[in-house]
Amino acid sequence: MEQKNKIVSKEADYLRALYQDWSDRMEANPNMTVVDLRSLFDEWEKPTLEPEDVTYKTDIVGGVDVIWAYPIGCDKSKVLIYTHGGGFAVGSSTSHRKLAGHMAKALGVSSVVLDYHRSPENPFPAQLEDAAAVYKALLASGIKAKNIGTIGDSAGGNLAVSSVLKFRDLGLELPGFVIAFSPWLDMELTGGTLESNAATDALISVPLLEGMIAMFIGDDNTKVRDPLANPLLADFNDYPPLYIAAGGAEMLLDDARRLHARATEAGIQATLSVVDGMQHVFPFLAGRAPEADEEIRRVAAWFQALQK
Amino acid sequence: MEQKNKIVSKEADYLRALYQDWSDRMEANPNMTVVDLRSLFDEWEKPTLEPEDVTYKTDIVGGVDVIWAYPIGCDKSKVLIYTHGGGFAVGSSTSHRKLAGHMAKALGVSSVVLDYHRSPENPFPAQLEDAAAVYKALLASGIKAKNIGTIGDSAGGNLAVSSVLKFRDLGLELPGFVIAFSPWLDMELTGGTLESNAATDALISVPLLEGMIAMFIGDDNTKVRDPLANPLLADFNDYPPLYIAAGGAEMLLDDARRLHARATEAGIQATLSVVDGMQHVFPFLAGRAPEADEEIRRVAAWFQALQK
Repeated sequence: MEQKNKIVSKEADYLRALYQDWSDRMEANPNMTVVDLRSLFDEWEKPTLEPEDVTYKTDIVGGVDVIWAYPIGCDKSKVLIYTHGGGFAVGSSTSHRKLAGHMAKALGVSSVVLDYHRSPENPFPAQLEDAAAVYKALLASGIKAKNIGTIGDSAGGNLAVSSVLKFRDLGLELPGFVIAFSPWLDMELTGGTLESNAATDALISVPLLEGMIAMFIGDDNTKVRDPLANPLLADFNDYPPLYIAAGGAEMLLDDARRLHARATEAGIQATLSVVDGMQHVFPFLAGRAPEADEEIRRVAAWFQALQK
Repeated sequence: MEQKNKIVSKEADYLRALYQDWSDRMEANPNMTVVDLRSLFDEWEKPTLEPEDVTYKTDIVGGVDVIWAYPIGCDKSKVLIYTHGGGFAVGSSTSHRKLAGHMAKALGVSSVVLDYHRSPENPFPAQLEDAAAVYKALLASGIKAKNIGTIGDSAGGNLAVSSVLKFRDLGLELPGFVIAFSPWLDMELTGGTLESNAATDALISVPLLEGMIAMFIGDDNTKVRDPLANPLLADFNDYPPLYIAAGGAEMLLDDARRLHARATEAGIQATLSVVDGMQHVFPFLAGRAPEADEEIRRVAAWFQALQK
């Protein structure tokens, strides 16, 4: 079911304005290095207000640098593995700490935000290997598979989905659930909303995505059709329940819709929530805009229903 | 007393390497805008590990955007007003949240990190007005003056010192204590270590400081000798106890030394801790390098002694 929500708040415009500022700055400085882009995209933390009553811990899990988010009183036997967005090349635990904290708090669980190895220094599938290393370490620590969920946004939404496919390939027991915010999945850029939402999406552009693909995929172009790079091409049999949210104004909306369709076709329990007028990864507005807080409440209700 | 500490750890080199990277990037892109510099300087959060058992809250105090840091179990009747560094133009609650959290935790108090108005959009004395607005709001909320301390680093160390002079000018009861890490005070750039430590300081340069001064002071050059812009020219009578820390390798070391001398001459209880080999604002290495953790323990011991 595609949910619709017509409210567009003034507070939600913060994210559009931030994206427009980034777009202007990237256009003004076309030679921005990936290091500079990482600095710029770490501003993703700005839209998100601090989730109250959440503590954090810098750690290494399965050899991967992480930050834990521990809402006070949370059930630490349940863990969200958060893979941040940023085209596999930018974004970090810094940009996503607060969003992961909000999600953990809403679900009453802990969250571990992965500073996975980023492209271009570490192209596909380094990110999936990191996710698998963390997952195996959590299982080895005694956390039950069903009590682990993968969650991510944008390219990290791809990783949240594809890492579970990777776990399946590795013969591991699968996590209990998967959450993807504005997942970017299609490495061949064939979605219709790339064109139809080009005027309303303040961040995404085809050249930006092409640059990210070049860094992620590296020299072997055939990998754009690897189901672990593009989960739209994957087999979703026996896949865990899946929650997908996306903004109605974003160019990557069709990736969310197609993921929902693929999962539903495979008989998987899949929910798609599309909020009209919202930009890419609008849950970044957590604490600031009602659209984000309402989306997070929907995810939490979905999660609670799964626990029954 | 100038304390010395000869240990220089491998972990502490993280800060030097970060500063060198910034210097290289600023040199490679001399037309970096202040917006881009803000993005770059927010990387100041990287050296600091998450302080465990600290929660945060986005808030507005006295009309100023802030983030609260609440260590679990802290005494909320005691507050550190944290004014971040960054030449009055860059730096933010994002870059300094974790450092403020470490300080609050070490002292067993809460901390409020001010996103004061930055130059050049808001030159001197906008920052002091924001600090005064927050201080008055805290007093109005029932917090006792003696239970408030001002703390800051670099340009924010200047503000931690000068805001108390401003409070005195306003006829307010003064805070209980002041803590300044690597304060930048001299707006005329006359310190001897600007030259003698130029080879070892990986971040500061005279042109960088000159650019910051131009943005902070604006058109009226006489303000560089205003005691509220340069507290080295201030009267320290009746000033609260003062703790100053600085790195032995940094160009602004003489500002710390001269502040200590001025305060001591005025009969104020002033402590200066200089750690050999350390870079500008080395407490950013909290949780990562022993030099920072040891410095924070010294501050905490000094604070506990004040409470007796």
